[in-house]
Amino acid sequence: MKMLLNKAGRSVPTHVNGQLEMPYAGVGAYIPQKNKAKPKVTTAASYPADGNKILPSLKDALIKAGIKDGVTISTHHHLRNGDLLTNYMFDIVHELGIKGVRWFPSASFPCHSHLIKYLEDGTIHHIEGSMNGPLGEFTSYGKMSGMGVLRSHGGRYQSVQDGEVHIDIAVIAAPTADPFGNANGLTGKAACGGLGFALADSEYADNVIVVTDNLVPFPCVPWQIQGNNVDSVVVIESLGDSSKIVSGTTEITKSPDRLLIAELVAKFIESAGILKDGFSFQAGAGGTALAFAMFLKERMKALNIKASFIRGGSTKYLVEMLEEGLTGYILDGQTFDLHGVRSMGVNPNHIMTSPFTSYNYHGKGNFASIIDAVVLGATEVDVNFNANVVSHSDGLLLHGIGGWQNCLFAKCSILAIPTFRDRIPVIVDEVTTLCAPGEMIDVIVTERGIAINPLRQDLLDAVKDKGLPIRDIRDIQKETDEICGGKPTKPTLDKEHVVAVVKWVDGTLLDSVYKVVK
Amino acid sequence: MKMLLNKAGRSVPTHVNGQLEMPYAGVGAYIPQKNKAKPKVTTAASYPADGNKILPSLKDALIKAGIKDGVTISTHHHLRNGDLLTNYMFDIVHELGIKGVRWFPSASFPCHSHLIKYLEDGTIHHIEGSMNGPLGEFTSYGKMSGMGVLRSHGGRYQSVQDGEVHIDIAVIAAPTADPFGNANGLTGKAACGGLGFALADSEYADNVIVVTDNLVPFPCVPWQIQGNNVDSVVVIESLGDSSKIVSGTTEITKSPDRLLIAELVAKFIESAGILKDGFSFQAGAGGTALAFAMFLKERMKALNIKASFIRGGSTKYLVEMLEEGLTGYILDGQTFDLHGVRSMGVNPNHIMTSPFTSYNYHGKGNFASIIDAVVLGATEVDVNFNANVVSHSDGLLLHGIGGWQNCLFAKCSILAIPTFRDRIPVIVDEVTTLCAPGEMIDVIVTERGIAINPLRQDLLDAVKDKGLPIRDIRDIQKETDEICGGKPTKPTLDKEHVVAVVKWVDGTLLDSVYKVVK
Repeated sequence: MKMLLNKAGRSVPTHVNGQLEMPYAGVGAYIPQKNKAKPKVTTAASYPADGNKILPSLKDALIKAGIKDGVTISTHHHLRNGDLLTNYMFDIVHELGIKGVRWFPSASFPCHSHLIKYLEDGTIHHIEGSMNGPLGEFTSYGKMSGMGVLRSHGGRYQSVQDGEVHIDIAVIAAPTADPFGNANGLTGKAACGGLGFALADSEYADNVIVVTDNLVPFPCVPWQIQGNNVDSVVVIESLGDSSKIVSGTTEITKSPDRLLIAELVAKFIESAGILKDGFSFQAGAGGTALAFAMFLKERMKALNIKASFIRGGSTKYLVEMLEEGLTGYILDGQTFDLHGVRSMGVNPNHIMTSPFTSYNYHGKGNFASIIDAVVLGATEVDVNFNANVVSHSDGLLLHGIGGWQNCLFAKCSILAIPTFRDRIPVIVDEVTTLCAPGEMIDVIVTERGIAINPLRQDLLDAVKDKGLPIRDIRDIQKETDEICGGKPTKPTLDKEHVVAVVKWVDGTLLDSVYKVVK
Repeated sequence: MKMLLNKAGRSVPTHVNGQLEMPYAGVGAYIPQKNKAKPKVTTAASYPADGNKILPSLKDALIKAGIKDGVTISTHHHLRNGDLLTNYMFDIVHELGIKGVRWFPSASFPCHSHLIKYLEDGTIHHIEGSMNGPLGEFTSYGKMSGMGVLRSHGGRYQSVQDGEVHIDIAVIAAPTADPFGNANGLTGKAACGGLGFALADSEYADNVIVVTDNLVPFPCVPWQIQGNNVDSVVVIESLGDSSKIVSGTTEITKSPDRLLIAELVAKFIESAGILKDGFSFQAGAGGTALAFAMFLKERMKALNIKASFIRGGSTKYLVEMLEEGLTGYILDGQTFDLHGVRSMGVNPNHIMTSPFTSYNYHGKGNFASIIDAVVLGATEVDVNFNANVVSHSDGLLLHGIGGWQNCLFAKCSILAIPTFRDRIPVIVDEVTTLCAPGEMIDVIVTERGIAINPLRQDLLDAVKDKGLPIRDIRDIQKETDEICGGKPTKPTLDKEHVVAVVKWVDGTLLDSVYKVVK
């Protein structure tokens, strides 16, 4: 395998799964000189005039879609860890004797460990998409035939739009759909909120199959997925386990350390002058992020401040802020609990967004960079603020990038992280896998203090003498290393064996993930 | 000019404005073997990170967009006859000394007669789009430098999507917009409802300029036009004359003949068995169409029948049907009065559609063919049911196609027409301009009786012995000719001089419009 050093100083392969790739060239440095993908022109003459595209089974639909060895099949993670459809679909692919599929999910979850046997028997050649848990571990040990490709949500849209990934067959799980293929995730027993992650696939795939367990008469509105892009519709008994698709209610952390981090983040945002009328923020659905939102909410009420918009992943807590008038809008990429699903269905100011509107770096701008502050996590951060979100210090690839890289373009990007997990320090000398260059990370908030990137002198000035525990990142690292009994043990990696690559938001190669030697 | 005969037996040029064209091959006969247009890939790195794309003036925006001789500039008819922006924009184009522009409006109106001087002085080379009134007349007399190209709303989307028309600069009038370019037509002093006609342009044009007289903070929701497709935003004092953008209330015809036609259409639909629970229909906003809707509404109430959906152009009358529960949805291409605008803004079941969802023939189906019955007008129909909607028997090109061709794909297409206008018979031996082949027209309803296309034996059987005045189309023609004192006088046309062409929904050439010799 031929490797070269990219602009971040990381070693990346020249080719990935036989395709020539470009090395990362710096933030905003790569200016594309090319055209978007150009899907085949279809004609209404080839589709039923009455709009009824229902086929008897998913098997029929896959055959009609021309499934064959080596195709690229895409799926989406709207059903999260409750997804039964993808496993069912690959059972059919296996039954049909198809080999060498490139699986292009927007993310995979532990429920997809069912597919390890198809990775082993050659049904699936490799996965391009997030690998959360077992599939990531499988890949880390060098067991996948091809090389994994990790992209952000925005990068996934970019790769399809730019023709870097051509999807032969998109299989879209639709909690509600009509016979024409219009679909949404707002109602039905598998209701999950929005279907934005499947947008690119519906626009660019050769063949689009909508699978639903809640068929309604035309028109299914709103059409988050447009039937005009859909080839066939299949009705099955059940898309998934609804209790694992969305939680009843997402829960705030009870850990005193995490609560302290959350409170510090809120205080930082206020002290830095970011918390003002008309501001905007995004935080995830993890326990710390939720706690942060609660602390912020209290301050907003106390100061009589209203946000112009909040970016979801939505939860009960954000929905309450919308309903209490603390924000004008929730712009929502995915709903994490039943409160979010309900709100998106009924509140016209709870708006579904897609990776196109929010994150695609190869558009005419996107929403992510408009946001005042974003609060994210990380598995590792190094002393130069470079950050990792996909692998742990033991080298195992266990998480996807999600919208993380895209969100870092906010005006102030904050990583809210504990100083150690399982007695392994989180602040390291050098990250195991580089997912974002240090210049993209503005602030690190830990339970032992706040470190501000020296590049952001404006933030350093803004919070000076405000009583916040501002510290040098190396000081925090030193203290943590002493508590943990030293720096993390370096994993044994086979540097000759790249198991996956991490793409930057513009499609260039940012880093390699190596085989872990047990 | 080289001409050839197409499948409809009409003579069409081989080339239009220097571009090779395909002759019409029959309904559904042309199966495209090509790919969609592929716009340039852009990067967020080239756009303001804070999302503020506002430029000081439209002139600045046009210059930044790289305006030069021979560019294609598109505009949209959401502001209808109240549009001031397009005239203002071409004043700037003229001031900049630009020549040879291809103007690609979704439609033009009498208010655009301001532009005749720019057609005369070479600023505008030719118009591709509907020419209602003065511009059509100008073209008919052979005064336009290039050849006009008339497309349906669906055909316009198709031509852009398929790369037949490449738009350099799209200028989108936006009654409400934010600095990022998200825009809608729901509010503001120029509120017009939906902005669907600009969708293709926003997706495919090299450069998209949103012009508004109602700037709101990000996010402008709903984003009927997505800011992610927009290059720049310009704020001006006024987009247009709101009284001419939408009427206060659209009016039902008071003519006894037209009322009779409307009543006969409603009776036909009931007698033919089309009027049943869950049915769907579309009618325009003309006086006869509105009267038809009122007659139908009474029957629906009497029979306790509810439509699944109604396709707009919406008016007060359709909005009342939605609010009274007589239809589940209005799927609306454009709002014709203030009641429609208001309803689309507040009623989640009053849905904006676009030429992509409703009409594009080169999609994976579209809404038009799903509809049970559509009621349309025509300028002429011949005895073989061929129909004309763009020119009059005097040869003058005075109307656009609108959604007319696309709507004919409904399960039952009905032309509601008077037998004569200004003592000129409407049923003719051969239409002046062919806009749809006879096989697409199922029924003709006049004040002197109903003629059913012999191809629709099912409809003939369905209404047999139901007391309707079913007649042979030639009988109605004969009676009318006698009343009017003979068949229409044939205009003097210069058959060597094609002034415009009519495209079919698939982009092929259906007919030619010839120069009228005074």
